[in-house]
Amino acid sequence: MTDTLIASHPLDDAVRLEPIGEGAFRGRTSAAYWNMAGPFGGTTAAIMLKAVLDHPQRRGRPIAQTVNFCAAVAEGEFEVHVRLVRDGRSTQHWQVEMRQGEAVVTTASTVTGAERETWSHAPAAPPPVAPAQDLAVFDTGGRAGWRGRYEFRYERGAPVFFEGGAEAPQGALSRNWIRDEPPRTLDFVSLAAICDTFVVKILQVRGDIPPVGTVSLTTYFMADEAALARQGNRPLLGVSDSRAFRHGFNDQSAEIWSDDGQLLAVSHQVVWFKG
Amino acid sequence: MTDTLIASHPLDDAVRLEPIGEGAFRGRTSAAYWNMAGPFGGTTAAIMLKAVLDHPQRRGRPIAQTVNFCAAVAEGEFEVHVRLVRDGRSTQHWQVEMRQGEAVVTTASTVTGAERETWSHAPAAPPPVAPAQDLAVFDTGGRAGWRGRYEFRYERGAPVFFEGGAEAPQGALSRNWIRDEPPRTLDFVSLAAICDTFVVKILQVRGDIPPVGTVSLTTYFMADEAALARQGNRPLLGVSDSRAFRHGFNDQSAEIWSDDGQLLAVSHQVVWFKG
Repeated sequence: MTDTLIASHPLDDAVRLEPIGEGAFRGRTSAAYWNMAGPFGGTTAAIMLKAVLDHPQRRGRPIAQTVNFCAAVAEGEFEVHVRLVRDGRSTQHWQVEMRQGEAVVTTASTVTGAERETWSHAPAAPPPVAPAQDLAVFDTGGRAGWRGRYEFRYERGAPVFFEGGAEAPQGALSRNWIRDEPPRTLDFVSLAAICDTFVVKILQVRGDIPPVGTVSLTTYFMADEAALARQGNRPLLGVSDSRAFRHGFNDQSAEIWSDDGQLLAVSHQVVWFKG
Repeated sequence: MTDTLIASHPLDDAVRLEPIGEGAFRGRTSAAYWNMAGPFGGTTAAIMLKAVLDHPQRRGRPIAQTVNFCAAVAEGEFEVHVRLVRDGRSTQHWQVEMRQGEAVVTTASTVTGAERETWSHAPAAPPPVAPAQDLAVFDTGGRAGWRGRYEFRYERGAPVFFEGGAEAPQGALSRNWIRDEPPRTLDFVSLAAICDTFVVKILQVRGDIPPVGTVSLTTYFMADEAALARQGNRPLLGVSDSRAFRHGFNDQSAEIWSDDGQLLAVSHQVVWFKG
């Protein structure tokens, strides 16, 4: 047995929560997933989901999660408080707050539901993208923080700075393979984080990055645990696009596909940008 | 002056809230917007938004709203409780609960933000749909309740029951013009409701309607008040689609366009269905 096998994955370290009371947990921000001015939002989403999954009354799997990024999360400790708002027959409704001191820095609502088989139908299909192994790994330039915790392989929409973009804006569609780095077997926690790994769309359409931040992120989990386990640690296909940038906000919608063409999650966000 | 001009619009009656304390309001379900087993979810979304807009500390316009339909809303009175979670420089974060007795029946999170002009860009365009006046008004069969409170003109995806749909499922894309009936000048409250007027997608793809209900609804408001006022009471173009029906849930995404081609809102939901 080697150290590599013994050591836990950095994502598991980042989302680790210590129970400190009924529906209350303590965690700590992770340097491994640091972003420019705070923790990577995807990790925060994963922590908020983990707190629900760790709650002793939780039944079933995540169906929907909305995360509202209320305030900057400071480096260091935080508490996560989970409340079961409604315990229904087919769904449970949860409210989650991340607090630092007196401040609520993040809120989330989560719906969990029993795993069950039903009639199924898939009107949407994944786009025809070359297999991951045929696309080059994106060079993140050895940057510290969250960008180094994922392996990206872009078919289109790789982040590139360019001049004069505001004069000739581009489309916002991106298609890329993505997996945790180092590889990690997919579960709902990592999937929640991966839904926020799309590079800010204003870079793609305009060529630069003004001050920017996700305001609210909603993910619908369209797969069961078995489908995530089947995916294992192989790359997922992510497709994302934006429809409009106006009045200081833009939308973004994304699909996450398994490598055998099943839709695992759809995820939407609204992003604030400056000027 | 006629009675028609004096009487208030049924939507305004349905969303009327009486202040009963700090951030607390009382309202009443509306027969005019009744659905089969409870109030129309769009009206509930509009009420949750109205409570935020009525809060004395609210600044700016709605940016994002997520509504979680936790439990059946019974006919009669309800209370709506609004809490300002975070009052930031560029956004305010709100939590909203609708209660009947001790039960929380609906929760919502809402983000409001200052109106401001910025760089803008619109990668998405509305689909080429014939003008509203060139499409027939959908016959709602004089049905009571919310379906009669909207005028629908379908280009595709009109609700039709058909046999054997499960054997030959259809696509889920719909495109239709829609406006309040009687006509009403567009505002954020009516827009929030209109985002939930798309007929349940399982009917469109399968030809029947099993027990079904929206679990969570997220709307991003991409326009300012001036754009809504410009739209006036003319029909809006709604485009909606679903990607997957699996494990008893399906997603739905919708765009609401002004009749001069501006994206006013994007709206997503996850829907529970039986068997």
